[in-house]
Amino acid sequence: MYVVVLAGGSGTRFWPLSRKRNPKQLMSVFGGKSMLQRTVERVLPLKPKRVLVVTNALQAAETASQLAYLQGVKIDIIEEPVGRNTAPAIGLAAAIIARHDPDGIMAVLPADHYILNEEEFRATLLRGRETALKDYLVTLGITPDRPETGYGYIETEKELRGAGPYPVSRFVEKPFFEKALEFLTAGNFYWNSGMFIWRASVILDQISTHMPALTAALAKLEFSPDIWELADLKPQIGAIYAGISGESIDFGVMEKADKVMVVPADFGWSDVGSWSALPEVIPPDAANNVLIQTKESIAIDARDCLVYGGDRLVALVGVERLIIVNTDDALLVCAEERAQEVKKVVAELEQRGLAEYL
Amino acid sequence: MYVVVLAGGSGTRFWPLSRKRNPKQLMSVFGGKSMLQRTVERVLPLKPKRVLVVTNALQAAETASQLAYLQGVKIDIIEEPVGRNTAPAIGLAAAIIARHDPDGIMAVLPADHYILNEEEFRATLLRGRETALKDYLVTLGITPDRPETGYGYIETEKELRGAGPYPVSRFVEKPFFEKALEFLTAGNFYWNSGMFIWRASVILDQISTHMPALTAALAKLEFSPDIWELADLKPQIGAIYAGISGESIDFGVMEKADKVMVVPADFGWSDVGSWSALPEVIPPDAANNVLIQTKESIAIDARDCLVYGGDRLVALVGVERLIIVNTDDALLVCAEERAQEVKKVVAELEQRGLAEYL
Repeated sequence: MYVVVLAGGSGTRFWPLSRKRNPKQLMSVFGGKSMLQRTVERVLPLKPKRVLVVTNALQAAETASQLAYLQGVKIDIIEEPVGRNTAPAIGLAAAIIARHDPDGIMAVLPADHYILNEEEFRATLLRGRETALKDYLVTLGITPDRPETGYGYIETEKELRGAGPYPVSRFVEKPFFEKALEFLTAGNFYWNSGMFIWRASVILDQISTHMPALTAALAKLEFSPDIWELADLKPQIGAIYAGISGESIDFGVMEKADKVMVVPADFGWSDVGSWSALPEVIPPDAANNVLIQTKESIAIDARDCLVYGGDRLVALVGVERLIIVNTDDALLVCAEERAQEVKKVVAELEQRGLAEYL
Repeated sequence: MYVVVLAGGSGTRFWPLSRKRNPKQLMSVFGGKSMLQRTVERVLPLKPKRVLVVTNALQAAETASQLAYLQGVKIDIIEEPVGRNTAPAIGLAAAIIARHDPDGIMAVLPADHYILNEEEFRATLLRGRETALKDYLVTLGITPDRPETGYGYIETEKELRGAGPYPVSRFVEKPFFEKALEFLTAGNFYWNSGMFIWRASVILDQISTHMPALTAALAKLEFSPDIWELADLKPQIGAIYAGISGESIDFGVMEKADKVMVVPADFGWSDVGSWSALPEVIPPDAANNVLIQTKESIAIDARDCLVYGGDRLVALVGVERLIIVNTDDALLVCAEERAQEVKKVVAELEQRGLAEYL
């Protein structure tokens, strides 16, 4: 199995800890290793043939540097000149793998997801691999445990939850609460995790059917199938990306393809889409506060807060449901239910030309 | 006129900006000069004969250092070995003044009050001086403009508000809201400012009547009435303070004395008793946020916040009525209505032995 790690996100929703050069996947969100390092380490017991990490020019050096410690693992950093969403990144990785090993199975994994039970995660990947070997496009569907409105859903034909795989009926956009509750109760809906498994040749075939312009662009790639020296590809990738438009693999392929199967997954998962997702995945203290990188803390009648103290003592008095992030040059104090609006802060920083904070 | 500045407060309610060695009066609460410096500068146009600053051992050096720039002003730093509330500090200053100039008029001014209209303040002091020359104990009573529950009140015999002075009927403790509203409407109640004017001999006489133990202790002072060299007093003050108990001048003398007059004052005043008092005295921005020592700020749907950014960019998203104070080693986030509880943080720091934050 090949592993393709999608690591090019800009992660404005984790500002001020995440910056353009230090997005969420390169951050030590949980203390210790970065999300990217955890993502790669998590698949190593499966002994992947190669790990292809797709990132962008701004983050490529730090990405390579963060993975340098993994001796004996064949890691390729693929540098996108500009972000074009997931379909071109996946298409490019598939084309590279296919030149070498057309029927090779590739797992596509975002670099910035949280996974609680790593053994179950790997077992799920192997179940997905079984289905992918039958030439299906496989997507991992997270068994929902709450009426989450922050994720897209996948509807399957079967009503009963089992090991699957189940044929996919349709992909559903992020629902309102009532719909989400309906999906949760129905039992044949899964969260769309953005994690996929398929043969390189199968996804390339589907891209050629549903995204012919991307296939035409990728056809310009010229390289030896015998060696894995990707540095030569850089100018070619630059030329290809200049001529293609951005598209997600969900919209570009998955929602239109026929042979799509969902493998139910239940390993404790979050896409950690904003600060407010962290309390879901980091154990809180007795007052339900989550304190990370905080030297000391005093909480007087304070609860449900997330605090990055930045090596300071943090004292909370009479506050609740706040996100507090203190870095060397910026301090964010945000109502938890407004966590999605942190990107508005980043937008205003850009507008006001305060580039040093981006 | 002599000016006695009470500058020994520990100011735990302005933590983490105020510390044991840097209490409120020594802080640049409003940017620029400290409250102590503002307090002394404010009276200089009245050409006081001397300015006696009563402080404590921990703060004496910084106090002297902060006032060193005032060339040509006769300033004496009186160092208390321990805090014993206002009565001993005032009695000590009065004893020192009386040895030199028994009938001298002394104005007693806390070092950490905010005064908006300084000309009116000085005019009020001069009106107080006129009454003090008639051997009254004079207290400045602030004309209330709201039903404040955070101040003590002074009731006068007269119902109509004028220039005064008015004889004091009684001193009233901090009232509940309904009482405060009643006082505001009644028209013969004033806020107890803690600012006094009297002859040194008159207050010493009243102390001897109502606090004979303090008088006995102060009688041990031995020094030449001809010189103002107070350094020799230090061991004597140490001995005196070891044997006396703490008491406020309000409770010890003012509430019991007969010849007490209130001079109505209306110069824009706050005792700046906690972080939540600052928005009363510092002009807020359009969203009613007060930002001090904050490099840059972005407020997205945030209002009624007080922010000391500590030379950082501060971003607020969807929050209101918060006090946010960021220093080099500590960050406070406090609900505005809980500002009085900041002292609980200081108490917990002491309890946990986190002395570096005190």
